[in-house]
Amino acid sequence: MPIITLTTDFGLKDPSTGAVKGAILSELDSVNIVDISHQVAPFHITEAAYIIKNTYSSFPKGTIHIVGVDSEITPENKHIALQLDDHFFICANNGIMSLIASEIKPQKIVEINIHDAVETNFPVLDIFVKVACHIARGGTLEVIGKNIPEIKQLKDFTPFINQDQKQIIGHVMYIDNYGNVVTNISRKIFESVGKGRKFKISARSVSFSKIHESYSHAINFDKPKESREEDGKKLAIFNASNYIELAIYKSNPSTVGSASTLFGLKLNDTINIKFEDLNAG
Amino acid sequence: MPIITLTTDFGLKDPSTGAVKGAILSELDSVNIVDISHQVAPFHITEAAYIIKNTYSSFPKGTIHIVGVDSEITPENKHIALQLDDHFFICANNGIMSLIASEIKPQKIVEINIHDAVETNFPVLDIFVKVACHIARGGTLEVIGKNIPEIKQLKDFTPFINQDQKQIIGHVMYIDNYGNVVTNISRKIFESVGKGRKFKISARSVSFSKIHESYSHAINFDKPKESREEDGKKLAIFNASNYIELAIYKSNPSTVGSASTLFGLKLNDTINIKFEDLNAG
Amino acid sequence: MPIITLTTDFGLKDPSTGAVKGAILSELDSVNIVDISHQVAPFHITEAAYIIKNTYSSFPKGTIHIVGVDSEITPENKHIALQLDDHFFICANNGIMSLIASEIKPQKIVEINIHDAVETNFPVLDIFVKVACHIARGGTLEVIGKNIPEIKQLKDFTPFINQDQKQIIGHVMYIDNYGNVVTNISRKIFESVGKGRKFKISARSVSFSKIHESYSHAINFDKPKESREEDGKKLAIFNASNYIELAIYKSNPSTVGSASTLFGLKLNDTINIKFEDLNAG
Repeated sequence: MPIITLTTDFGLKDPSTGAVKGAILSELDSVNIVDISHQVAPFHITEAAYIIKNTYSSFPKGTIHIVGVDSEITPENKHIALQLDDHFFICANNGIMSLIASEIKPQKIVEINIHDAVETNFPVLDIFVKVACHIARGGTLEVIGKNIPEIKQLKDFTPFINQDQKQIIGHVMYIDNYGNVVTNISRKIFESVGKGRKFKISARSVSFSKIHESYSHAINFDKPKESREEDGKKLAIFNASNYIELAIYKSNPSTVGSASTLFGLKLNDTINIKFEDLNAG
Repeated sequence: MPIITLTTDFGLKDPSTGAVKGAILSELDSVNIVDISHQVAPFHITEAAYIIKNTYSSFPKGTIHIVGVDSEITPENKHIALQLDDHFFICANNGIMSLIASEIKPQKIVEINIHDAVETNFPVLDIFVKVACHIARGGTLEVIGKNIPEIKQLKDFTPFINQDQKQIIGHVMYIDNYGNVVTNISRKIFESVGKGRKFKISARSVSFSKIHESYSHAINFDKPKESREEDGKKLAIFNASNYIELAIYKSNPSTVGSASTLFGLKLNDTINIKFEDLNAG
Repeated sequence: MPIITLTTDFGLKDPSTGAVKGAILSELDSVNIVDISHQVAPFHITEAAYIIKNTYSSFPKGTIHIVGVDSEITPENKHIALQLDDHFFICANNGIMSLIASEIKPQKIVEINIHDAVETNFPVLDIFVKVACHIARGGTLEVIGKNIPEIKQLKDFTPFINQDQKQIIGHVMYIDNYGNVVTNISRKIFESVGKGRKFKISARSVSFSKIHESYSHAINFDKPKESREEDGKKLAIFNASNYIELAIYKSNPSTVGSASTLFGLKLNDTINIKFEDLNAG
């Protein structure tokens, strides 16, 4: 059964998502429609990219991903369909795919050209669904668009590494449901620059000199439960997506507070990692 | 595979929706359950009607729509099942169907009478699911209810047109996920009254003399990006549902503000359209 | 088709839920994944237990329930899989199952031991999905874990009954989407202690001496609609889950207020029921 995923900023109340699902089911008898997220902040392509980048590869090869964020066609943002990592993506060429696929070259990119007969202000419903169902029925990208050589580039996810390799300057890329703060500094970049040196991560008034592999590693389970400071303990970890995350163990944004509120960190705030001099000591 | 949609005010946390889905899956081996929305404001049948009216016809003919808003049975609001536009609807006869189907005559209406053995304060679970599964198995409406000639009428969606055809007085019918303000004035009414005349739309302190066909039409893409005022530009458009909508281009209610907050418009606030005198000038 | 349900505190925005669904669909061609709730308050196992307890038995026997709340493995909370009431549950042994199954003895409990090769900080994705798919394919629990005799016990749902059987002291267990206040006092306990005596339910400044069977029973439909006080009428009822609930008829937390806000009741606040002396009068 073909799988079509939806990632949008439609929210969960408006008729938009229901209409899109109805339209897919009107074209395909047998299809698995999966909501990835409809809670992307309006027009926030960085947030959408983070969510999709950390989701899509869990799905089987051949899955079709509709990205309904900032999807209106404009003279600057045409609609595209891509094959990438054996998955299909349908979105506006607004730079989002360069964030999702920063390290992977697309296998095929087409600029969708089935619009000639369609004037719409709901392109996900009127264009993306048609393209997705075409692909789900085994159709090729060439039928619905013309090949283009590359996608629009954005670099929001890349941290800055200074010339003497002693410092990484990144930023807050995402704040999750627990209020934990995800940076744009990946384990790969951290390790390739750090080479095992001591370091200090600074973000506003907090700092960390250790990165844990899991949340509970921050807790000393040898101590009796009563004398542990379990809730509210701050830590840095490599999260499930392998980015450095600044967290509060068992945080709850609406009660005890979260990393975001307690550290005073917001989207795009600077995260600084300084490494010890290689010849130090 | 039969399709059953759900539109409720249950929210997304409570056990209600899960219980309903479980009950459907206990009756039907093969069924496609689609969430339209569970975020309808509590007991808000106008909002539910707007969402369903702009969703249901995307689904294939024969789809069964469960409406779980203000669904408790009372001496005044009996439970009904309808066939309308070749779709099935199951709801309380509280007027909601007259809002959804204001321009369409139902093909069949029955008052559900399988309650005799059931006392319940969760009618969606205990009654609507049974009726939906009965229809999904190909059962007729007559088996679960007795024919009634008409549904309860409400007129919330209809704007007022003054006698000299120079003015339409409508109201805010819905505020969407982007904070855009949907009026109850349809393109059809606007065009049939306006007949191409100049006009002025007024709503509190804002006014508009043009209605765009899409959001990006409000932007002049010939100007270089730097000198455009892209975010925050106000405009009136015919939205995807063909109602007049007052919008902010690329608004975000939680950051830059939205049409609703910036124009100070809330549900039910008045929207006024004045047309030029036919013999003007 | 096997059914796998998801109850988590992941929220509806983060990549977590999408990743879990993708991973299930990568293992199973044909499966029905049902979201029960992703809006459990972070790490709130009592809330998760209430939701699952009032949902799971609507599903067909054999359904597999993944519980992704407080699921990190620690020396104190191992991962377990259970067969209970002919359903399967996969969760951490943090006490949650004792709340769900307080009156039912599990048919089988195993402590999952497929972790040896897996270090993870996303156990729902890396462990629970594998176990769920194993069960969905007809695999036995013994293959993925070793039998253990019992689960960790918590008693949060049990009200206190005083020795002379004249008083039940319970607490607020859950606040629903309408702001109604669900207590941990079940109909069964109420009736077995009360034995038909008169009573008074007290909670902060409100009190009730009657428990209705449904919301609309609180309204006198013999009076004309204009002279009824329909909205905002307070009442106690046995809710759909057969717990005593303190409610406002047709409440709306974001407009007219709700039982929770109007009565000033929060999670864990005390609910007191005093019964008339058996020899009274």
